[in-house]
Amino acid sequence: MGMVGGGSDAFIGAVHRLAAFMDNQCELVCGCFSVDPEISLSSGKSYFLPDNRVYKTYREMFENEAKLPAGERMDFVSIVTPNHVHFEPAMMALGGGFHVVIDKPMTFSLDEAKQLKAKVEETGLVLALTHTYSGYPAVKDAKARLARGDFGQIRKVYVEYPQGWLSKRIELEGGNNAGWRTDPNRSGKAGAMGDIGTHAWHLAEYITGLKVTELCAELKAFVPGRPIDDDGAALLRYENGATGVLMASQVAAGETNALKIRVYGENGGLEWRQTDPNILLLKWSDRPTEIMDVGGNAKLTPDALYNTRTPQGHPEGYLEAFANIYRNFANTVQAKFAGEQPDPRWADFPNVTDGLRGMQFIETVVTAGYDDSRKWVKWIE
Amino acid sequence: MGMVGGGSDAFIGAVHRLAAFMDNQCELVCGCFSVDPEISLSSGKSYFLPDNRVYKTYREMFENEAKLPAGERMDFVSIVTPNHVHFEPAMMALGGGFHVVIDKPMTFSLDEAKQLKAKVEETGLVLALTHTYSGYPAVKDAKARLARGDFGQIRKVYVEYPQGWLSKRIELEGGNNAGWRTDPNRSGKAGAMGDIGTHAWHLAEYITGLKVTELCAELKAFVPGRPIDDDGAALLRYENGATGVLMASQVAAGETNALKIRVYGENGGLEWRQTDPNILLLKWSDRPTEIMDVGGNAKLTPDALYNTRTPQGHPEGYLEAFANIYRNFANTVQAKFAGEQPDPRWADFPNVTDGLRGMQFIETVVTAGYDDSRKWVKWIE
Amino acid sequence: MGMVGGGSDAFIGAVHRLAAFMDNQCELVCGCFSVDPEISLSSGKSYFLPDNRVYKTYREMFENEAKLPAGERMDFVSIVTPNHVHFEPAMMALGGGFHVVIDKPMTFSLDEAKQLKAKVEETGLVLALTHTYSGYPAVKDAKARLARGDFGQIRKVYVEYPQGWLSKRIELEGGNNAGWRTDPNRSGKAGAMGDIGTHAWHLAEYITGLKVTELCAELKAFVPGRPIDDDGAALLRYENGATGVLMASQVAAGETNALKIRVYGENGGLEWRQTDPNILLLKWSDRPTEIMDVGGNAKLTPDALYNTRTPQGHPEGYLEAFANIYRNFANTVQAKFAGEQPDPRWADFPNVTDGLRGMQFIETVVTAGYDDSRKWVKWIE
Amino acid sequence: MGMVGGGSDAFIGAVHRLAAFMDNQCELVCGCFSVDPEISLSSGKSYFLPDNRVYKTYREMFENEAKLPAGERMDFVSIVTPNHVHFEPAMMALGGGFHVVIDKPMTFSLDEAKQLKAKVEETGLVLALTHTYSGYPAVKDAKARLARGDFGQIRKVYVEYPQGWLSKRIELEGGNNAGWRTDPNRSGKAGAMGDIGTHAWHLAEYITGLKVTELCAELKAFVPGRPIDDDGAALLRYENGATGVLMASQVAAGETNALKIRVYGENGGLEWRQTDPNILLLKWSDRPTEIMDVGGNAKLTPDALYNTRTPQGHPEGYLEAFANIYRNFANTVQAKFAGEQPDPRWADFPNVTDGLRGMQFIETVVTAGYDDSRKWVKWIE
Repeated sequence: MGMVGGGSDAFIGAVHRLAAFMDNQCELVCGCFSVDPEISLSSGKSYFLPDNRVYKTYREMFENEAKLPAGERMDFVSIVTPNHVHFEPAMMALGGGFHVVIDKPMTFSLDEAKQLKAKVEETGLVLALTHTYSGYPAVKDAKARLARGDFGQIRKVYVEYPQGWLSKRIELEGGNNAGWRTDPNRSGKAGAMGDIGTHAWHLAEYITGLKVTELCAELKAFVPGRPIDDDGAALLRYENGATGVLMASQVAAGETNALKIRVYGENGGLEWRQTDPNILLLKWSDRPTEIMDVGGNAKLTPDALYNTRTPQGHPEGYLEAFANIYRNFANTVQAKFAGEQPDPRWADFPNVTDGLRGMQFIETVVTAGYDDSRKWVKWIE
Repeated sequence: MGMVGGGSDAFIGAVHRLAAFMDNQCELVCGCFSVDPEISLSSGKSYFLPDNRVYKTYREMFENEAKLPAGERMDFVSIVTPNHVHFEPAMMALGGGFHVVIDKPMTFSLDEAKQLKAKVEETGLVLALTHTYSGYPAVKDAKARLARGDFGQIRKVYVEYPQGWLSKRIELEGGNNAGWRTDPNRSGKAGAMGDIGTHAWHLAEYITGLKVTELCAELKAFVPGRPIDDDGAALLRYENGATGVLMASQVAAGETNALKIRVYGENGGLEWRQTDPNILLLKWSDRPTEIMDVGGNAKLTPDALYNTRTPQGHPEGYLEAFANIYRNFANTVQAKFAGEQPDPRWADFPNVTDGLRGMQFIETVVTAGYDDSRKWVKWIE
Repeated sequence: MGMVGGGSDAFIGAVHRLAAFMDNQCELVCGCFSVDPEISLSSGKSYFLPDNRVYKTYREMFENEAKLPAGERMDFVSIVTPNHVHFEPAMMALGGGFHVVIDKPMTFSLDEAKQLKAKVEETGLVLALTHTYSGYPAVKDAKARLARGDFGQIRKVYVEYPQGWLSKRIELEGGNNAGWRTDPNRSGKAGAMGDIGTHAWHLAEYITGLKVTELCAELKAFVPGRPIDDDGAALLRYENGATGVLMASQVAAGETNALKIRVYGENGGLEWRQTDPNILLLKWSDRPTEIMDVGGNAKLTPDALYNTRTPQGHPEGYLEAFANIYRNFANTVQAKFAGEQPDPRWADFPNVTDGLRGMQFIETVVTAGYDDSRKWVKWIE
Repeated sequence: MGMVGGGSDAFIGAVHRLAAFMDNQCELVCGCFSVDPEISLSSGKSYFLPDNRVYKTYREMFENEAKLPAGERMDFVSIVTPNHVHFEPAMMALGGGFHVVIDKPMTFSLDEAKQLKAKVEETGLVLALTHTYSGYPAVKDAKARLARGDFGQIRKVYVEYPQGWLSKRIELEGGNNAGWRTDPNRSGKAGAMGDIGTHAWHLAEYITGLKVTELCAELKAFVPGRPIDDDGAALLRYENGATGVLMASQVAAGETNALKIRVYGENGGLEWRQTDPNILLLKWSDRPTEIMDVGGNAKLTPDALYNTRTPQGHPEGYLEAFANIYRNFANTVQAKFAGEQPDPRWADFPNVTDGLRGMQFIETVVTAGYDDSRKWVKWIE
């Protein structure tokens, strides 16, 4: 694998590497880790790379790597830059025949997302989008239980992602990740809704298998001077008649990453929280709530079990969820290289279609979020 | 005290009696416990009342009791009937010079609420509304902390009340409380929003001291054939610029009474859940979350402490919260009789003004909840 | 009911009154509330008693009350004094034909306990011992499930009661309950083991229905100068071959009343904690842990249900557990007066036999706790 | 790194590899993965090893690897076999100049442990013992807080490790890890006490920095026919006068890995549970309990912070704790190779001294556990 972004001054890049290395499937062979060539070089060194595989620009990287023999050149690239530097390197990578892992939201704009999707389809290459939370075994277990109808038809979805780290205008202080995230020129149209609202929206669609058809929203910047939303909420309508509520905030002071989802059907419901990620609560109208513990004595659904590493009772965490996306992506890519049919269990990592829908979500929620004259806004394709 | 409703076939009446008796301040001396005189009489017997203080109609009760000497007649009446039988007995009671405790929502319609408020003001009598959750010590602690500005200015309110007991159309089975609650002729305009949405709304206004100025809502009956909402959600705007989300559902299958509120200010927030009612979580931007346990080693605010009965570390529950309303009401009434100034600490039970606002909330949320053409509806006075 | 102790300067007396009044079955008609006649009198006034029913000594009370006509005199007495003032008033009460409620431990010494038991048997009167924790619905549910063999034969019992309030020598400060509890002349042979160890031991025998046959223990006073144990632990052997661990401490700084019990059988186990008293966790070897919530959607065992007051989903607490003991005792006493057979469901409050066993526990654990030369000490009858 | 054991039919080996790879510091270059050469070879293949680095015996491995040039041969070996196959390969490795990672308990017998320690000291090589739980950031945080005296002098330690997987005699079924663990010829003198009791004992000594000086214990095999303890408990005395209770069971049916520790000092205490491993509860005599969340807003102690990978609010798990041991060990080894002084922060992984003490713990607890004639047994050196 190669990497764009993720220098020693960044942080999500480190997560990508940990996740990729864990299962001994991916090896970092090259990268362009920073716009600053010094940082890129020193980062590469600290990642045990030879200097000639650390590049000054990603353009140079794609060009050079493409010239290397098959066994030597990178097989795929992980793009872990701010949102406005997703599209170009992704298009180049695909153009050069490289598979792609990309952080969410997939692109800066909806238009870019459409082009990228077209490119993926044209090239037949694989693109994985790191909506991490869908990698948790308990989340996969929830998805499987809802899909097989354990709770009857789905009626209600509550999904929320409260954070508090942007309660003050820390982007002015520098030296943190708040800078580009609160800058519409680098982040895109949405702030909190793009950064974490997309995660919440995706988790809900992933778990329920239901698509949002229209929504009603309010977005707001609570912190004076901030040019982009740091908070929002939306009422959701799903294709099957279910309704939902989505809440995302980066000014819920005191919270860190309290992502939580609840889904209710006709005879019960379930609840999952990222702060206790191995637990899935199964609630029933006529019997006790069950604690479905990934490490416990309950029988996991096969999909959930397949995405579990540790012996019974030993908690897995965020990195393992992330690693599940990498492992399933890498397996798929390997099958491609080998000309084999991928195992259906590998297919459930978020892909370019999820990426496009994510950008549509941003478009729709931003359109709805500031317009007091329209209550419901139809999903913008 | 006397009672209207609360026969042996009812259930909230029993809660009122437990709450009233606990502190040895209130004695049941008379009642009209049912529209069925047989049930009324047998209920009265089981409550240790002599037959001549058990009445066939509440009209008869108010008339007879008014004729009894001061030390013998009831001092106040508790009205624990379905919503459509709140207004008439309450007006009669006030007309007869009796103080009143009444279950929420206060009346069947907003218009009745206005008349009742006028009557209370005219008579100078005391009316308490049993929004039980405001009686919990931890809730009072939350209110005091927010009022003194521990968290800075309030920005966000999330309040939710998921129940699941109406996930099926059990009102057709009879023999349960669902009958009148899902019947607009007895319940009023709102179903879930009237029954539990008002609790959620009130809790939020009680804790924050902030008033809702407009809201955007969707209400729905999920269960086929049900003529009234069994689910709803609203986006809230508060007078100070804070925003909120309110969720109330009686089709969240598997939930019982998972009332929960979170409030966030500039530098922290708090969380309270009815399922663990002695715990108040205090969350901070710059230090660990604190578990403010009513029975723990933390220093409660004086108001919270005043409403606590049990020695340290012994959990109180719903009945004690209910009893706090009764105790503070009874103390206030006793002071009235004695011509004394009531202790300011007794004043915080919900009263006729809360009751009127509750009916305004129902009016506003029902107006907004079915109208797809208007996003925001201003609070209806 | 009458009361010995429980003046306005005491605190467990208030709990007894709240518990007794709640269900409208018991009325306080007389008392000797303090050794200080002034305090007794003023306490009586504040409890709405006429002066002539407030006595200077309990001897006077028993004598006078016995002379009153049946409908007027007290039916039973609650003894809520320090341990060294349990025996004499209890013997007098029984001698005068009064039923008795008494706080634990039942007496000051094992010898007194034997005499008291003989007296109860001789008189045929009823004695209830307020081991409160056995009054919780979830505890009764646990007992019923274990009794019917849900988990197979019982193998392991872990019971613990950590408190921290005696971490410093606060008994020297005065004005608190630590004085008599740390004074062997008033408390008896044991400190922490008598005060809370007996609760833990009783809870374990109550839930499992198994008796301890021998134990190995270490007791200790951690706080310098304290003449009695403030901490201890014991290994337990039960009659059926099960083993257990009991821990009781009053120097577990930071804890308040974290009483907890776990019992394991051949195919599962259960867990109950006083800090979350409506929850019983049911753990299974082959399926998810179940949250048996007294207020939830699970089917309680009949005994547990019978001891529940509040509508579904509303948490009960310590006072209701306490009130269950009073209600079941009062029902039993009423049946005695009426010459009727008591309902078998009333019989499960702790009685004089539990009280005697409690004193035997103290005798045994103190014997074992300081003797480094003997590992196992047989239960001292 | 090389590996002894850990074939595709084993399970702890997989954990070792995941932990070693995660930080991109260790690469698997050779191994002898099974006594069955077929399994060893196929395992090696699946781990992407060339056939010539997969060995039939570990003797062969150590001999061949020692002949390879420095940059090519393994730097250290991970020994992940059953207990009776720890000593010989470890001695050979050290003899061949290889550093060693070894699973706990360190050896089959105390005598072997002593020889191994002498060998480590003689060779100056590094040996790491994977007492995983000491690798958790929250555990390191606890250690640091206790060491700096946040809670005053330590008085009480409660440590427990309940599991339920050996509630039936599953070792007779084959195909599981129970076989060698319940066989004294492969496991050593202790069953549950060796497998998980050592973890509990080590965690307590690690966190408190205090050594056990004597203990009183009962060990037992609950499951009929099992020749080794599957359950036990011990009363502990520490060097500073503190006392403790240790519980370890593999017949606590329904539990998986509920390792938990509580430590109390003069003015507060702390609690950590493996089931919620990022949370450390800080309890205080005079203020609210604090939730020290590794991913939260609290300030971690520097040692804890150093052993954390993920961005704020994202839960780490068992594998990251394991990886901390590998990373700190690998850093230390690299410094050795480079002739540099290791960073003091790397030094806190469990080493050969911990391993020896662990074997002494087993010796002591087994001696005490079956002897009803001696209460206290002094630590056996």
